[in-house]
Amino acid sequence: MSSTANRTVNLATYIFTRLRQLGVGSVHGVPGDYTLRALDFLKPAGLCWIGNCNELNAGYAADGYARVKGISALFTTYGVGELSALNAIAGSYAEYAPVVHIVGTAARKAYRSKAMVHHSLGDGDLRVYSDIYKRFTVAQASLFEPKTAPKLVDAALEQCVKESRPVYLELPSDMVGVHVPESPLERPLNITPPSNIPKEEDSLVDAILDCIYSSKQPYILVDGLVAPDGITDEVNEFARATGFPTFGLTFGGGIIDGTLPNYHGVHAGKFGSLDFTPYTDSADLALLFGPLLSDTNTQGWSAVPRKDITIAFRRKSIEIGASTSHCLHIKSFMRTLLGRLNTTKLPTQNPKIASLPSVRKLATALPPIEPSSPIDQDSFYLRISSFFRPKDIIVCANGTPLVGGRDFILPPNTKLINSAIWLSVGHMLPATQGIALAQQELGEGGRTIFFEGDGSFQATAQELSTIIRYKLNAYIFIVNNDGYTFERLIHGLNAEYNDVANWQYLKAPELFGATDGSYVVQTHEVRTWDDLQYILGNEEFQNGKGLKLVNVRMDREDVTKNFRAALKLAGQQLMAEP
Amino acid sequence: MSSTANRTVNLATYIFTRLRQLGVGSVHGVPGDYTLRALDFLKPAGLCWIGNCNELNAGYAADGYARVKGISALFTTYGVGELSALNAIAGSYAEYAPVVHIVGTAARKAYRSKAMVHHSLGDGDLRVYSDIYKRFTVAQASLFEPKTAPKLVDAALEQCVKESRPVYLELPSDMVGVHVPESPLERPLNITPPSNIPKEEDSLVDAILDCIYSSKQPYILVDGLVAPDGITDEVNEFARATGFPTFGLTFGGGIIDGTLPNYHGVHAGKFGSLDFTPYTDSADLALLFGPLLSDTNTQGWSAVPRKDITIAFRRKSIEIGASTSHCLHIKSFMRTLLGRLNTTKLPTQNPKIASLPSVRKLATALPPIEPSSPIDQDSFYLRISSFFRPKDIIVCANGTPLVGGRDFILPPNTKLINSAIWLSVGHMLPATQGIALAQQELGEGGRTIFFEGDGSFQATAQELSTIIRYKLNAYIFIVNNDGYTFERLIHGLNAEYNDVANWQYLKAPELFGATDGSYVVQTHEVRTWDDLQYILGNEEFQNGKGLKLVNVRMDREDVTKNFRAALKLAGQQLMAEP
Repeated sequence: MSSTANRTVNLATYIFTRLRQLGVGSVHGVPGDYTLRALDFLKPAGLCWIGNCNELNAGYAADGYARVKGISALFTTYGVGELSALNAIAGSYAEYAPVVHIVGTAARKAYRSKAMVHHSLGDGDLRVYSDIYKRFTVAQASLFEPKTAPKLVDAALEQCVKESRPVYLELPSDMVGVHVPESPLERPLNITPPSNIPKEEDSLVDAILDCIYSSKQPYILVDGLVAPDGITDEVNEFARATGFPTFGLTFGGGIIDGTLPNYHGVHAGKFGSLDFTPYTDSADLALLFGPLLSDTNTQGWSAVPRKDITIAFRRKSIEIGASTSHCLHIKSFMRTLLGRLNTTKLPTQNPKIASLPSVRKLATALPPIEPSSPIDQDSFYLRISSFFRPKDIIVCANGTPLVGGRDFILPPNTKLINSAIWLSVGHMLPATQGIALAQQELGEGGRTIFFEGDGSFQATAQELSTIIRYKLNAYIFIVNNDGYTFERLIHGLNAEYNDVANWQYLKAPELFGATDGSYVVQTHEVRTWDDLQYILGNEEFQNGKGLKLVNVRMDREDVTKNFRAALKLAGQQLMAEP
Repeated sequence: MSSTANRTVNLATYIFTRLRQLGVGSVHGVPGDYTLRALDFLKPAGLCWIGNCNELNAGYAADGYARVKGISALFTTYGVGELSALNAIAGSYAEYAPVVHIVGTAARKAYRSKAMVHHSLGDGDLRVYSDIYKRFTVAQASLFEPKTAPKLVDAALEQCVKESRPVYLELPSDMVGVHVPESPLERPLNITPPSNIPKEEDSLVDAILDCIYSSKQPYILVDGLVAPDGITDEVNEFARATGFPTFGLTFGGGIIDGTLPNYHGVHAGKFGSLDFTPYTDSADLALLFGPLLSDTNTQGWSAVPRKDITIAFRRKSIEIGASTSHCLHIKSFMRTLLGRLNTTKLPTQNPKIASLPSVRKLATALPPIEPSSPIDQDSFYLRISSFFRPKDIIVCANGTPLVGGRDFILPPNTKLINSAIWLSVGHMLPATQGIALAQQELGEGGRTIFFEGDGSFQATAQELSTIIRYKLNAYIFIVNNDGYTFERLIHGLNAEYNDVANWQYLKAPELFGATDGSYVVQTHEVRTWDDLQYILGNEEFQNGKGLKLVNVRMDREDVTKNFRAALKLAGQQLMAEP
C-alpha cells in the first residue's frame, strides 16, 4: 500500500502538483479576489508566480512559455480576467500552444443562487464564460465536486499535452481547499505520444517511401506545427538524410537548421526575397510537414503545393494527394519512416537544384555595408543573422518583422517563434517574457532575441516591466518605422489611422522600474549600419544578460522588396468592388 | 420627391452618417487590414478617428465616451480585435453603456469558401466570434446583403440607444463600398424614449404617490443606472421636491447634487464612512432608482432595502414590494410622477432625520491638516472634494478609489463615473480618455478628474499616450499604495502575488511622447497634505488644461476605516471551508 494511500491534499495543491509534474515551473496571471486563496498554494507546490500587468498579456506570456516548454499555465479571475485573456487563448488554440487556463470563480453557492456577483453579467447566468471557452479549448474541467475533480483535472491536462492546445479549469473559490486523495498524484499523467498499429504504420511508410523513391523532383516544405507536433528532430533528420531541397513556410522558418546545405530558406511564392517557384512549380512531390496553411502564412495560398503532388504530414493524419487521408500519430510514424528510409533508393539529384537560390548565398552576396547608410528592411534580417548563436530563441512580432524574419539564417538548435494565422497585434512582447522565462528555467543557455514593430510594442508595452521585474534576459529590437507600416502599404499610405503615438521608446525601462543596479539595462538608438555594428560587436551586448533595448529606426515605408508587391495586391483586393 | 431619392452612398458612409446623427463625434479603435478601407470614409462623414494602442483599451475608451455622450462607437478588426475588446463590451453590457461595435471582417467569399483566413481559428467557421457577441450585445447586424444592410444598421443603432447597451455590426470588407440608397438617412432614427399608456401610467403614479404620502419613514436610494435610464434630472428633482433623506449606492454616488441638504452620502451598510442603518433599517418605504444590485455595489447586499418596503424604479419596469412588477417606461413615468406630486401631502419630517449623518458634516468636522503628515485614505477623498467644480466629471477606478470615492462631495452638474459589477482592472484609464474626449466634444467646460490605483494603472497605462497624442485635458491622480491593496486586505497582506512592478509613474509622459510644447504636462509627487495643498492651490493646476499627472503616495495597507472590515469579511468568506 502506498504511503499516501490515505493522505489528502487540497484541490489547488493537486492541480499545481500536476502542473509541476508536467514541467510547468511558473504560472502566469493577475490576481483577483476569487483566485487569492489558491495562489497561496503555488509556492508550496514548487511553482513560481509571474504577475503580469493584465490578463491578455498574461495569456500571451503563457502562450510564449508553452511554445518553448511544451506546456504552460495561466491563472486568472472569473469574467473580467478570463474574457481579457480570451484573445490570447484563442490564438494558442489556433496555433497549437498548450496552455492550461485556470479560472478562479465565485463560490458554488453563488452559482446555485444565481447571485449577482461581481464580474458576472448581472443576469444570474454564471456559466456564460465557461460556455464560451468550450470553443477555444480542447477540454474543460468544471470543478464543482470534490469526488470528480481530480479525474477531471487529470483528463484535461492530458488532453492539453496530447492535443497541444489550451484547456480550461473552472475552480470555484470554495473548491480551492476541498480535500482530495493524494495517491493519484503518484501515477504520472499519460502524455506519451500514442503509437500506431504497426502493420498499418509499416504499410503506410512503405507506400510513402515508394512515392519518395520514384519521385524525380521532390521537395520538403516545413511549417511551424512541426514543433508542437514534437517532430522537429525527426524532420531535420529526414531533410538531412534525403538531401531533398528543403524550404520553410513563414511559420516554420525556424524548424530546419539554417546551416543545412539543402535548406534554402522560406518559401513565400513570388513574394519572398528568394523565388523558389521555378523548382517548386514543376516538382512532382511535395512533402509537407506540420502545415498551418493560412492565407498570410502562404501568401494567399500561392506557396502551397498542388494537392496532387503533396503528402501532408499532420499531428494525427497523413494526407496523400487530394483524396486519401490516413489517421495516424505522426511521432511514431516519423521514427519508423526514418528507420526504414533507404537512402540508396533516393532519386538522383535533380539538375534544377543547382540553380536554386538560398538565403545563405543571398547573405554572402550582400555588398559591404555603407557605415552611414540607414538600416533597410531588405538586408537588416540577413545581416543581423550573424549575431545569432546555437540555442538562441528568435521571436518575430507580427508586421514587418514577421516578413523580414523569413530571411534569417538560423544556427542549429535555435528556435524561431512567430505567428501563422492569429497575427494579433502586441502578442509577441508578452510572449517574449514567457519565452525568456521558459528559457531561463530550461537552463540550457541561449538568448531570447525579439524583433517588434513600434505599433505592436505600444499594444502591450507594459509587459516590458514584467521582464524587468523578474530580471529576465532579453534583447528587444524595436523595428521603428513610425506607425503601422505593414498596413500603410496595404492601404492608406499616409492615412492618419496608420499613425501611432510618438513614443520615446528608450525611456521605457525608466518608467518600468529598471532602477535596480542588480539588473543591467542597455538602451541603444540605431540609425545607421555603423550604429548597429557597433553594438553587435560589443561583448557586453553579446552576453545576453539583462535587458538590451534597441530602437532601430527604419524608413516608414520600407518593407522587404518583393513583399511590397504582396501588400499592394492585398490592398487591391480590399478595394475591389464586390 | 426628396433630392436624395435616387442617390446612393456606400455602406460605410451610411453607417458613419447614422453614428454622426446620433451624436457620435469620434470613433475609437485599432486599424486592421479588414477595416482599412472603411476608415477612409470616417472623416468625410464628419467623424474623427481615435487610434488606441490596443483593442481592449479602445473598448474601454468607447465605454467611457458612451457614459458621457449616451452613445459611442468602436471599430476593430475581425477575430483578434473583437476578442481583445470583448471584455470591455461585456462590461458595457453589464453596466448599460451604449457602444456600437463595428467589426471589419473578411470578404464574403471567405465565409462562403470557409477559407483559412488570418484571425480565424483555421477551421473554416468564420462566425465563431459573431456568435459569441450575441451574448454581450442587444442587437447584431450581419451586413452580408446590400438590400438589407441599411435596415439592419438602423435597427441595431436604435436598439443600442433604446436599451443603452452594446450592439454589434459585422461588416465584411467587400461590403464597405456597396451602394445603398441615401434617402433613408433623411429619416432620423427613432430613439425617443417610448411613452406609456396614459391610463396605466396615471394609475400607477397614483398608487405610488399613495405609498409615498402614507409613509412615515421613507428614503430615496439612488443607483447608477439612473444615468443610462436618462432620469438623472428627474430623480434630482424628486429628491429636492420630497426632501426625503436621500442616499446613493456606490455606483450611483454621483447622481444626486451633493450640495442638496437632504442628500447624505453613499449608503454602504455598515461598511461606509457613514452609518445610515439606524434610519434605513427601520424605514417603511425605500424608493430605489436605477438599481444594479451587485454584491460589491451593495456590500454583500447589506445596503439593499428589504423588498417589502421597496419600490424599485427600473428602465422598463417598476417593482412594488416583493411580488408586483409593472412594465412601464421610466422616463415618461417620472415626468408624470413629478407633475402630480403634491408636496403638501408628504409625510411630516421624521424625527430620526435630525440625527442622520452626512458626508458634508463629516468633511466639516475634519481636523485641520497636519502639513507634513502623509495622505490617508480616510480623509483624502473628503478633502479633495473642495477641488471639484460644477460640470467636472470625476472618474474612480476599481480598488481603493472606488471605495474612497463614496466620500466625495460633488457640486451640482458633476458626474461620477465608476463601476458597479464589472470591476475590471485597468478599465478606467482608457475610459478616462474617452470621457475627456466626450467632454471636449460637448464643449460645456468642466474638467475630467481621474483617481486610479497603481496596480490598475499598469494594466492599461499606454492609453495615457492616447490622451497625450490627442491633446486631451485630464487630471490623473495615481493613488499609489504599492500594489493591489484592495486585495491585500482581502487575503495575502504580504503575499508576493499582491505586489506589482516598481514603476516610476511620473516618467510616463516622457515615454508616451509628451515632448510637444503645445501641450502642457504637469507631473507632481505628493507625499504629504502640504504637497497636495500646494498643487491644488496652484492656478495653473486648477485650469484643467493638458495633462496633470499626480503620484499620490499612500500607505500600502491603507483603506478607509470601515471598509477594512468589509474586506476582512470577504477574506474570511474566501477562507471558509465549504
